[in-house]
Amino acid sequence: MADSFIGKDFLLHNDPGRELYQHYASSCAIIDYHNHLSPKDIAENRKFENLTAIWLEGDHYKWRAMRINGIAEEYCTGKAEPQEKFRAWARTVPATLRNPLYHWTHLELKTYFGINSLLNEQTADAVYEQASAMLQHDDFRVQALLRKMNVQVVCTTDDPIDSLIHHEQVAEQENGINMFPTFRPDKVYNTIDPQAYATYISLLGNAAGISIQLYDDLIQALSNRIDYFDSFGCRASDHGLESIGYTLEDSKRAQEVFKKVSSGVFLTRAERFSFQNAVLYELGKLYHKKGWIQQFHLGAMRNNNTRLLHQLGPDTGFDSIGDYAQARGLSDFLNQLDQTNQLAKTILYNLNPADNEVFATMVGNFSDGSVPGKIQWGSAWWFLDQKDGMEKQLNTLSNMGLLSRFVGMVTDSRSFLSFPRHEYFRRILCNLIGEDVRRGVLPNDLSLAGQLVQDVCYNNVHHYFQFQV
Amino acid sequence: MADSFIGKDFLLHNDPGRELYQHYASSCAIIDYHNHLSPKDIAENRKFENLTAIWLEGDHYKWRAMRINGIAEEYCTGKAEPQEKFRAWARTVPATLRNPLYHWTHLELKTYFGINSLLNEQTADAVYEQASAMLQHDDFRVQALLRKMNVQVVCTTDDPIDSLIHHEQVAEQENGINMFPTFRPDKVYNTIDPQAYATYISLLGNAAGISIQLYDDLIQALSNRIDYFDSFGCRASDHGLESIGYTLEDSKRAQEVFKKVSSGVFLTRAERFSFQNAVLYELGKLYHKKGWIQQFHLGAMRNNNTRLLHQLGPDTGFDSIGDYAQARGLSDFLNQLDQTNQLAKTILYNLNPADNEVFATMVGNFSDGSVPGKIQWGSAWWFLDQKDGMEKQLNTLSNMGLLSRFVGMVTDSRSFLSFPRHEYFRRILCNLIGEDVRRGVLPNDLSLAGQLVQDVCYNNVHHYFQFQV
Amino acid sequence: MADSFIGKDFLLHNDPGRELYQHYASSCAIIDYHNHLSPKDIAENRKFENLTAIWLEGDHYKWRAMRINGIAEEYCTGKAEPQEKFRAWARTVPATLRNPLYHWTHLELKTYFGINSLLNEQTADAVYEQASAMLQHDDFRVQALLRKMNVQVVCTTDDPIDSLIHHEQVAEQENGINMFPTFRPDKVYNTIDPQAYATYISLLGNAAGISIQLYDDLIQALSNRIDYFDSFGCRASDHGLESIGYTLEDSKRAQEVFKKVSSGVFLTRAERFSFQNAVLYELGKLYHKKGWIQQFHLGAMRNNNTRLLHQLGPDTGFDSIGDYAQARGLSDFLNQLDQTNQLAKTILYNLNPADNEVFATMVGNFSDGSVPGKIQWGSAWWFLDQKDGMEKQLNTLSNMGLLSRFVGMVTDSRSFLSFPRHEYFRRILCNLIGEDVRRGVLPNDLSLAGQLVQDVCYNNVHHYFQFQV
Repeated sequence: MADSFIGKDFLLHNDPGRELYQHYASSCAIIDYHNHLSPKDIAENRKFENLTAIWLEGDHYKWRAMRINGIAEEYCTGKAEPQEKFRAWARTVPATLRNPLYHWTHLELKTYFGINSLLNEQTADAVYEQASAMLQHDDFRVQALLRKMNVQVVCTTDDPIDSLIHHEQVAEQENGINMFPTFRPDKVYNTIDPQAYATYISLLGNAAGISIQLYDDLIQALSNRIDYFDSFGCRASDHGLESIGYTLEDSKRAQEVFKKVSSGVFLTRAERFSFQNAVLYELGKLYHKKGWIQQFHLGAMRNNNTRLLHQLGPDTGFDSIGDYAQARGLSDFLNQLDQTNQLAKTILYNLNPADNEVFATMVGNFSDGSVPGKIQWGSAWWFLDQKDGMEKQLNTLSNMGLLSRFVGMVTDSRSFLSFPRHEYFRRILCNLIGEDVRRGVLPNDLSLAGQLVQDVCYNNVHHYFQFQV
Repeated sequence: MADSFIGKDFLLHNDPGRELYQHYASSCAIIDYHNHLSPKDIAENRKFENLTAIWLEGDHYKWRAMRINGIAEEYCTGKAEPQEKFRAWARTVPATLRNPLYHWTHLELKTYFGINSLLNEQTADAVYEQASAMLQHDDFRVQALLRKMNVQVVCTTDDPIDSLIHHEQVAEQENGINMFPTFRPDKVYNTIDPQAYATYISLLGNAAGISIQLYDDLIQALSNRIDYFDSFGCRASDHGLESIGYTLEDSKRAQEVFKKVSSGVFLTRAERFSFQNAVLYELGKLYHKKGWIQQFHLGAMRNNNTRLLHQLGPDTGFDSIGDYAQARGLSDFLNQLDQTNQLAKTILYNLNPADNEVFATMVGNFSDGSVPGKIQWGSAWWFLDQKDGMEKQLNTLSNMGLLSRFVGMVTDSRSFLSFPRHEYFRRILCNLIGEDVRRGVLPNDLSLAGQLVQDVCYNNVHHYFQFQV
Repeated sequence: MADSFIGKDFLLHNDPGRELYQHYASSCAIIDYHNHLSPKDIAENRKFENLTAIWLEGDHYKWRAMRINGIAEEYCTGKAEPQEKFRAWARTVPATLRNPLYHWTHLELKTYFGINSLLNEQTADAVYEQASAMLQHDDFRVQALLRKMNVQVVCTTDDPIDSLIHHEQVAEQENGINMFPTFRPDKVYNTIDPQAYATYISLLGNAAGISIQLYDDLIQALSNRIDYFDSFGCRASDHGLESIGYTLEDSKRAQEVFKKVSSGVFLTRAERFSFQNAVLYELGKLYHKKGWIQQFHLGAMRNNNTRLLHQLGPDTGFDSIGDYAQARGLSDFLNQLDQTNQLAKTILYNLNPADNEVFATMVGNFSDGSVPGKIQWGSAWWFLDQKDGMEKQLNTLSNMGLLSRFVGMVTDSRSFLSFPRHEYFRRILCNLIGEDVRRGVLPNDLSLAGQLVQDVCYNNVHHYFQFQV
């Protein structure tokens, strides 16, 4: 059943698309330049006890669907037995019809475990037992899973205070796994709780070997940590923000605002935003100096459910899409860095698809011919990481920019079983282009279209990031 | 001509879709849980004098199209003879090609009157005379029209001060018509005109048997009326708002703001919004206590044309889609109720489709596993209640939530001839799902897809509202 | 290759669509009621030296694509030789696959020059030489190019201070070219630089024969210039704005704000916006008196790149899509004019497609039956002027208004080779309608659909503008 459901032509509805996928896309290696995998799991080559451990732990997408389906918290993040949790998930799977989870689920079962049956209450136990048993073999340990998927590079997401010890270990293993850190300094400008902030700044100072008293010390500490990350082959930073902006006032006030929050005083919303922007501006210049890529994930509204935040913590499935104004602030920020020619290569990701066209055209404002595709509109992210979301991003990017210069897909995932999402993306890409060829909207020349496909799947990201592999 | 135009496969462009519609959707009863039908017309089992009376009176959709088509007001809401008005509408119909009105028009002529010709200037008189004659038969009275469409439940929209006498009458008739009121307290927080507001509050006090002097009296009066509505089988409230929000300040200030407006002083825009939110928060707790469903229709910008508002009054075709920020306030409001576990089942409707993804993901923030589909993103509303609008809502809901838990379609209509819109919705739903099956994007298992269809068409709304039928 | 790529059925994917295009659309004359062509080039019947001169000079769409592709500024706007620039463009063309530029490029090569090969690095020189040679013939001069495309009317975009001497010359030539000016007073309310503003106001006073000291003088000067433009057959104004609004305060303050800026003092952002709205309100009344059409292009965020603005000036490819709130202000502005029945026929264009539905429904608020399609939602503009953008505009207009009353396409172009965009639009329109017919979503009656097509392609714009041809 699932065999014909997710077969070799899955998502490929035209001949040119099938040919493009088979001859140009499917064999490309994966450079997964943004994800949330555990460096420790990779370094220690973790073996997972059962399917629940590798598939449901930490996966807030699945929890969210289960809750909407009326499943109690005990079976999502709670104390239920692993197999009970799996049954609750299996019961939910048929309720996810038309949701990307239905596709991910069966694509992952098939790709990693060769399981072709549809997951539901009836098949739950058989699937659980078969997959859990396979996970006990060495070729289902983390590093083997990465190799199986032809993953050439994985970039984790790391706090400036991280020791990067696991990155060091992996580098020393010399086993073909290329894992690089990504500099994610969100806590550096999250000043909402002065006490927690002070604690963090103290840890940052320790990591950087600096006693951070003044704003300038903070920037110096960040500079030290950027040097440190760079020494591990880091090529990129990442930032999760509601929105961004910049005025000269932000930099002028930063010293004083930092003093205020450091003295334990709560900042106003405006002060917090201003401080964030000042820090990001300084960081932007440091990134540019290193030749790094800076990434901005904009527009998530997080932790909406206070009751369950207190119970379960952040990143547990209670975030949603915001409707912040983005255009003016984003332009101001990028422009300020550009004026002195200190704008690093940049990737902008939006969460609200109503902003697609704002982002698609924003990147053209700061492309100055110096680097192909210098400013990128990132791939469809989080809630948008599904067929419709990807197609809209690809089509809007095509219409308002150059698809041919796009650095393509990332998993952005916390799961070692998420790599088939690259296959998913590639099938969607080939299908779209193939349909254009079939309809005569593109020339009937598969070498031309095939070049485009390979560039988006591999060549562009390879040239853009220049990882030391 | 129209026979082949709106035939048995209308909107069904694939085999699985046709099968789904025929075997799973078409026979489902209708629970129309939100509309603006006249309780009086239902109670009195109104007979309509002619086609203009049942079809053009009160239909601001048609008036609006006529005005855009250059038809003078006399033929829309004015003093022209019924048949003259009908001719003006018939002349406009060919100009509505590709507008849902073109479909509604011919679907309604066919379904109720068996008329298959295309309506235009040439066919106007024949259609008018045939349909008007049929309307004189008893099986074209209001209750027969409802029965003909297999309507199991109709929920009208009623002001807290309504006596519900017509609901009482219908209940006593014991004729298979299940009509329930919906509590729509918009006037309770519409404080723009202090004098009109005082008049309304006085009427509300009378209805509730309370002299409303203070804010607390107001809440008590609302509580009384909620009890009263509940005794008539009411299961839901409804609210029409530009936007919503909540901070603790709103509740703190409410007493004083109520005093201010009650003394005849005009409120600021901020005060009006704050007061609205405070009242809605209190109402939310009352709804939760009753086990009601609260509905919010958000984002309309009303009464844009002052000149014609003065001439014709509200709800005459001069409203449009607003672009208010919705995410932050909506999250704050729902979160406040959720913190004390007093968040009722809730349906959120947006008017601006640019907010689709904000709404689709908002509902997941407050689904806590306690009730399947506890917070719902409502069906495509008003300007969005057409093929594209429905498809976008269904697709976005599928991608970002669980379509399988959706409570489905409502007519939201003022017309007794609007019930074929459920058929319209069902055909669109079956076509979408059928196309997925045809393309192998869903498993080729019509019992699985059929379950989904029946749940969305009937089972979910039945379980969610639990009307006493 | 390109022959089959852009053949006679290009973009027409169904039989009814092909028939509609062939029998109803293709032979319609073009009324290009909004563009940025050079009146001087038309009056002097310019001959272009080479393909670079007619195709790359002033085309910021192409420059932008080239920069994203990593081409240095020297080859965009700089000092490189014409043929070197052309080679850089040709090298970029294959990188524009799926961008409208890829279609425009080959459609224009084919339509004007009969060149069917795909443009790329290999074909660059041959194409350049063939087309440049053809441009030396008299039937490739500007006026011949217009006649070849069956252009009945061109409306240029002109500043109130323009002498319109070229319009006078063209009128005197009596050679079948109907060129009319459009009144574009953006500089009249661009008060950001008081000194530049004073200079402009002085020039305006000279042109109007008035010494402008007070705000009332300014309005009188504008009135004089409107009379002058009207005497040249001008039928429309145009305005490029981020957003618009109106309150009575705007008019009350205008005198004082004008005095302030005239004295060299910088205005606040709020003052500038208020002043803009006051002036536009006065202009709106003047346009209404003349029976003109007022056009508003809303939502562009311009000159984002300060570094390259200083180097290259405005309109060089560094603008993008803004996300300004539009609904409230637009409604207030139109309503104010409508209240005294002084609202002129109006065309509203949005740049952010997230505003599509706001605009599509806004126009219905002020359609009062006096004129068919009195308030228009303009065709997909700038970044939206491509297949997806046009289809979305046409579909949303269909769903929320009357497509049948739409005044249709404009090139909005600076290039004499852009007129095939009307063909592009017409093919897309016919394909959409044809697909509806094929699927039975519209009646299978091509005379009905054909009438719609011809109305949108020619009849509506002809009746709406009433140019003196």
